[in-house]
Amino acid sequence: MSGIPQDAFTPSPEHHFTFGLWTVGNPGRDPFGDPVRPPISPIAIVEKLAGLGAYGVNLHDNDLVPADASAAERDRIVRELQATLAATGMKVPMATTNLFSDPVFRDGAFTSNDSRVRSYALQKTMRAIDLAVELGAGMYVFWGGREGVETNAAKSPQDAVKWFREAINFLCEYVRAERYDLRFALEPKPNEPRGDLFFPTIGHMLAFIYTLDHPEMVGLNPEVAHDQMAGLDFSHGVAQALEAGKLFHIDLNGQKPGRFDQDLRFGSEDPKGAFFLVKLLEDAAWTGMRHFDSHAYRTEDEQGVWDFAAGSMRTYLILKEKVARFNDDPEIRQILGDLRARGAGPRLTWSAERGRALKAERFDLPAIRRQGYGYERLDQLTMEILLGVR
Amino acid sequence: MSGIPQDAFTPSPEHHFTFGLWTVGNPGRDPFGDPVRPPISPIAIVEKLAGLGAYGVNLHDNDLVPADASAAERDRIVRELQATLAATGMKVPMATTNLFSDPVFRDGAFTSNDSRVRSYALQKTMRAIDLAVELGAGMYVFWGGREGVETNAAKSPQDAVKWFREAINFLCEYVRAERYDLRFALEPKPNEPRGDLFFPTIGHMLAFIYTLDHPEMVGLNPEVAHDQMAGLDFSHGVAQALEAGKLFHIDLNGQKPGRFDQDLRFGSEDPKGAFFLVKLLEDAAWTGMRHFDSHAYRTEDEQGVWDFAAGSMRTYLILKEKVARFNDDPEIRQILGDLRARGAGPRLTWSAERGRALKAERFDLPAIRRQGYGYERLDQLTMEILLGVR
Amino acid sequence: MSGIPQDAFTPSPEHHFTFGLWTVGNPGRDPFGDPVRPPISPIAIVEKLAGLGAYGVNLHDNDLVPADASAAERDRIVRELQATLAATGMKVPMATTNLFSDPVFRDGAFTSNDSRVRSYALQKTMRAIDLAVELGAGMYVFWGGREGVETNAAKSPQDAVKWFREAINFLCEYVRAERYDLRFALEPKPNEPRGDLFFPTIGHMLAFIYTLDHPEMVGLNPEVAHDQMAGLDFSHGVAQALEAGKLFHIDLNGQKPGRFDQDLRFGSEDPKGAFFLVKLLEDAAWTGMRHFDSHAYRTEDEQGVWDFAAGSMRTYLILKEKVARFNDDPEIRQILGDLRARGAGPRLTWSAERGRALKAERFDLPAIRRQGYGYERLDQLTMEILLGVR
Amino acid sequence: MSGIPQDAFTPSPEHHFTFGLWTVGNPGRDPFGDPVRPPISPIAIVEKLAGLGAYGVNLHDNDLVPADASAAERDRIVRELQATLAATGMKVPMATTNLFSDPVFRDGAFTSNDSRVRSYALQKTMRAIDLAVELGAGMYVFWGGREGVETNAAKSPQDAVKWFREAINFLCEYVRAERYDLRFALEPKPNEPRGDLFFPTIGHMLAFIYTLDHPEMVGLNPEVAHDQMAGLDFSHGVAQALEAGKLFHIDLNGQKPGRFDQDLRFGSEDPKGAFFLVKLLEDAAWTGMRHFDSHAYRTEDEQGVWDFAAGSMRTYLILKEKVARFNDDPEIRQILGDLRARGAGPRLTWSAERGRALKAERFDLPAIRRQGYGYERLDQLTMEILLGVR
Repeated sequence: MSGIPQDAFTPSPEHHFTFGLWTVGNPGRDPFGDPVRPPISPIAIVEKLAGLGAYGVNLHDNDLVPADASAAERDRIVRELQATLAATGMKVPMATTNLFSDPVFRDGAFTSNDSRVRSYALQKTMRAIDLAVELGAGMYVFWGGREGVETNAAKSPQDAVKWFREAINFLCEYVRAERYDLRFALEPKPNEPRGDLFFPTIGHMLAFIYTLDHPEMVGLNPEVAHDQMAGLDFSHGVAQALEAGKLFHIDLNGQKPGRFDQDLRFGSEDPKGAFFLVKLLEDAAWTGMRHFDSHAYRTEDEQGVWDFAAGSMRTYLILKEKVARFNDDPEIRQILGDLRARGAGPRLTWSAERGRALKAERFDLPAIRRQGYGYERLDQLTMEILLGVR
Repeated sequence: MSGIPQDAFTPSPEHHFTFGLWTVGNPGRDPFGDPVRPPISPIAIVEKLAGLGAYGVNLHDNDLVPADASAAERDRIVRELQATLAATGMKVPMATTNLFSDPVFRDGAFTSNDSRVRSYALQKTMRAIDLAVELGAGMYVFWGGREGVETNAAKSPQDAVKWFREAINFLCEYVRAERYDLRFALEPKPNEPRGDLFFPTIGHMLAFIYTLDHPEMVGLNPEVAHDQMAGLDFSHGVAQALEAGKLFHIDLNGQKPGRFDQDLRFGSEDPKGAFFLVKLLEDAAWTGMRHFDSHAYRTEDEQGVWDFAAGSMRTYLILKEKVARFNDDPEIRQILGDLRARGAGPRLTWSAERGRALKAERFDLPAIRRQGYGYERLDQLTMEILLGVR
Repeated sequence: MSGIPQDAFTPSPEHHFTFGLWTVGNPGRDPFGDPVRPPISPIAIVEKLAGLGAYGVNLHDNDLVPADASAAERDRIVRELQATLAATGMKVPMATTNLFSDPVFRDGAFTSNDSRVRSYALQKTMRAIDLAVELGAGMYVFWGGREGVETNAAKSPQDAVKWFREAINFLCEYVRAERYDLRFALEPKPNEPRGDLFFPTIGHMLAFIYTLDHPEMVGLNPEVAHDQMAGLDFSHGVAQALEAGKLFHIDLNGQKPGRFDQDLRFGSEDPKGAFFLVKLLEDAAWTGMRHFDSHAYRTEDEQGVWDFAAGSMRTYLILKEKVARFNDDPEIRQILGDLRARGAGPRLTWSAERGRALKAERFDLPAIRRQGYGYERLDQLTMEILLGVR
Repeated sequence: MSGIPQDAFTPSPEHHFTFGLWTVGNPGRDPFGDPVRPPISPIAIVEKLAGLGAYGVNLHDNDLVPADASAAERDRIVRELQATLAATGMKVPMATTNLFSDPVFRDGAFTSNDSRVRSYALQKTMRAIDLAVELGAGMYVFWGGREGVETNAAKSPQDAVKWFREAINFLCEYVRAERYDLRFALEPKPNEPRGDLFFPTIGHMLAFIYTLDHPEMVGLNPEVAHDQMAGLDFSHGVAQALEAGKLFHIDLNGQKPGRFDQDLRFGSEDPKGAFFLVKLLEDAAWTGMRHFDSHAYRTEDEQGVWDFAAGSMRTYLILKEKVARFNDDPEIRQILGDLRARGAGPRLTWSAERGRALKAERFDLPAIRRQGYGYERLDQLTMEILLGVR
């Protein structure tokens, strides 16, 4: 990779880095411009990523099998991919359905006003689930790119919630009936390509899961860029999902807030936010896949695509090393230890007696009002670790 | 109010309009400027709002009772307010605690790193709950204005979730122990005054509720401005809460996306969004309070404050009338009827047989791809109703 | 148009409404989806828009003439369009160059790091200017869709400013040398499709114009959506350009702040902002073209496209009527008259004596501090006019 | 400062770091909370900052002299400050007027609808200019915190432009008449505390300057946070001002886009953006003051304030060192050299012959379309320098 050294930041399969076929395969088309790169075959992608140290690839049904392929063609394509996977040791840990490119989904898939579309979306997903299982995936992602509106006159948002729930419940039952070992990860996004998408953030999607028939089968696939589009602190949302046992998968990339979906190389924007995300995942020893859902700049040729892929993994490992450095820094440990001592009161568990006692307690408010928390110093130390001068 | 006519848009108590003492009482201080208006006493506020047609007032503990009041002063103040309520017929349907102004809460209340602060916040809330019940409130709002961080180095977001849960669970038990007839409504906000607040949107807060010990006691108090600060479609979030049975209270105001918390007069920004919100509430025959959590521009004197209050209610009623007009419009009914016909397929309830049949179904995709949905026309009709030319 | 009445809001050529061929001709492709509508020929567009009451159409070079057309094909295409223009009375008041779709421009056109691209962009523009003049256009728009970066490591922003100036200066000289009667209108945009575009707002572009060799030939083509993407008040920017004599053209559409470029139907978002924009243009009796740079929702078929076009013009006329109503409203006139009386001090023109007098003047600050401005009432009246209840 | 080492990143006066009295003196009041820190006297601030290595302090008139001070008090205060400046070697390179805190300015200062306010604002500024000159300042900043509106019904934006111009022209004449050696730096901001401020970005303010009577006296004071509130690339705006010879002063701090004005410690948010800003200033050998217009988190006590101040300067120096490292990196030099070679065509200067030649030139478009630009690699190298692993 144009001289990137085989150093401490060299990825290997144990790091569980994955890429979508659609990410490194992105040809650089955008709303104002034509493709700039020729397609790369799935086989070539798998081989190249294996060489770069990735763990696996993920795919939409149509990333691999063209929509109009015959059954025989489909089977041949799948066999070829399986052979390459076997040869390279690469996995397909996650798969998903493309429910957004075909004009048939222009008003939504599971939430289209047309019930035929809702049914067809289910069918397409059932078939894609079969493919996913055939390729060994244990995780199935749902991103509802068309589940939204441009005008609220068109659709009741309560109906949309109900339709979406109906679909996920149906598909949970399908997986159970087929005895597939497969869990679902739902991916929220606030807008684009629709004006407003239903379940716009981690929070909305997490809340929805509790209303399902089989909530234990369903978790989240949060994406950095999607919550940052809404200006939210991504690591807070991920932490809430993690604390609730619902972080099933994650999409890593970069994004500037308040604009179009950029899908930039992980860590190339807001490295501080990326650091705290890596810290959250690593401190929790989270075992899921580190999936990069992003693509190379449109300025790039194929070499740039592989630079992008290599850089994504490398930056994660750089940040992971910084997390260890933060956790070991004596001054930071001192500051955090002091804070923890302040926070070390007994847990606030209710009893009638505890309630009475607390209600009558006297607090030295003037002293508490005066005390500072030392967060400027703590944050400066954090930045110096991030900037590599500490 | 300076000539606003007693017409079809005249508010009366049956409309359930309420204002916070802190809203009409806002003296116009902001980060860059001093107060511009003298304080108005709670008594004067209640009397004036009664004259304008409001149903009631809501309050923070310290809006009514100064923090350093003696028990006797407190009781006198409460008795005076009760007398005015009785005389005017006004209610106090909701109350809340100020857990953000005092420097003691500078690092949070329920999520402060200092356990003494977490305890004190509980104590202050227990006492404020007593006051709320004494004044007849059935709803208790929690807005955690300081529950957040400027730097993620300072606090684990998972700890913050746990601490916040501990506090709400504790207070639920308190209400149960006291046999109070009181429900809790949690109010999310993405940021300001902290850099990032935990539980930043309706979705995050709704998800949190499912993890409580007594989720049935707890719902949401969404605020228009807060979700719009993050650029989210407010009516979608409210619809999700409503569909989940969790819309307990609502804060109406106005806001431009992507900027500081403006708390503008309801309907004065994004009247289209306000229309669809009113439509959602009225179509659902939602029985909760229409609370205005906003304030007059800082340019105004006291007359401007009452203009602001009157305008808030009047605009709601104007929009309510437009909702009826939308629902009765023959062309709109035709379009929506046609759409509903498309959507009128059978519900997608799982059975093994249904799954098999669906998987094998043939869809006329070319025909579905070609069809348009008529949403431009539908939206134009909506705008013409909104603009009063239809 | 599906029953839109021939009423007071019926457009006619005197209203100077124009559409880009690319707007009604937009096939509905987006970053996540394929086209949903078949192409409509330029001829058919002109005929249809003429029937709807438009004044003319605008075009990019390649909207009309395919990039690979021979000279003979080009001339035939141009003749056919001219014949249709003559038959319908439609005009081509503005034209522009497509400098963003071709992969050759992936790093910019006038600001590409590759000097061959910068030269080619000039050549393509010179040829497109010839076409514009041949079609009778008096205005030439520059939208630099690729003039930006994803990473600031790639390009000096000062070089970019110089390169862009060099290009515009060169093209001004070309127009002068050819004795064309043509003015230039520069169109700013903050981002998309590039991560950040140079000259991101009306202000940046206006400032740039003062540094040109022939500033008198060059003005602005501001677009509603572009400034609103950055959350700016569009009418303020347009007013600054207008006051500076630099509003040469305008792109009308709709947009929610802080997200991807939506190009929604004019007036369908933020009708209050649209009202104040129409008020600005109409009160100033601005004589330029009211160009709609927007497109139908992707949910629509061709009927939806014409609904969109008709609705765009109709909403402008509705708002224009409201402007007249605002200007004639007795209570509004009273309030604004009173405000104007406060503002009616002498102009602050310097003289040494005036300076001395002003420095010594005594102001009754307590009185001024107490006074309110009545803006809540004024804004409520404005909203009631906008909502059609006044 | 609590152990920050005297290393390569230790500030000294030659670095030209300055702070506002209002920045380190900020008591931590915000819209939802009371002050948390006692005031620090100007004298104490100057002494402390001198010890930390700053070059000077800047001030608003009322930061130093209370609004109601007698002439004798004023003179005593000024003398005391001058004595401390002399003793410490600190300077006052810039001063400004507070035209936003007093309720008298609630509708604006130079653009208030009340002409008495416009006059009073001029008077206050003339007096504050005298103070500035007395303290040795060579730069005078104008931040129009109240120059805006909440409703566009209140004020013509064209009048606002004219009023603001009138004021700046008047004050330029005052400075010329007094033969003061003083230049003006105008500071834009998009919103807050007003709903929308006139001249919202660097671009708008730069354009305005060209319309003044004495544009040579007037430049810009851009602030990182202000352009980032609107999601703009700050370094692009600064580069445009610099290229135009109009970067007179700069306000350094940190901000997350699309939210309230945070005034965070420089470099603590978006360190990549901060790096490119420092690169722009240092590569241009810009000689102006590096002024920090920011404040410590509200969680802090006084120690935290000095941590904040020390960290601000230290981070600038860390980034400055990284700029040198970037400029010296062999691989980066190679990439940029290759790009520069592509860009090395002749300047595009018009002549009739040149125009003819260019119009006829043949470009190898297929080859140019195929070429990548290597920006992913370049950006990854940049990030690795920023993260200190290269």
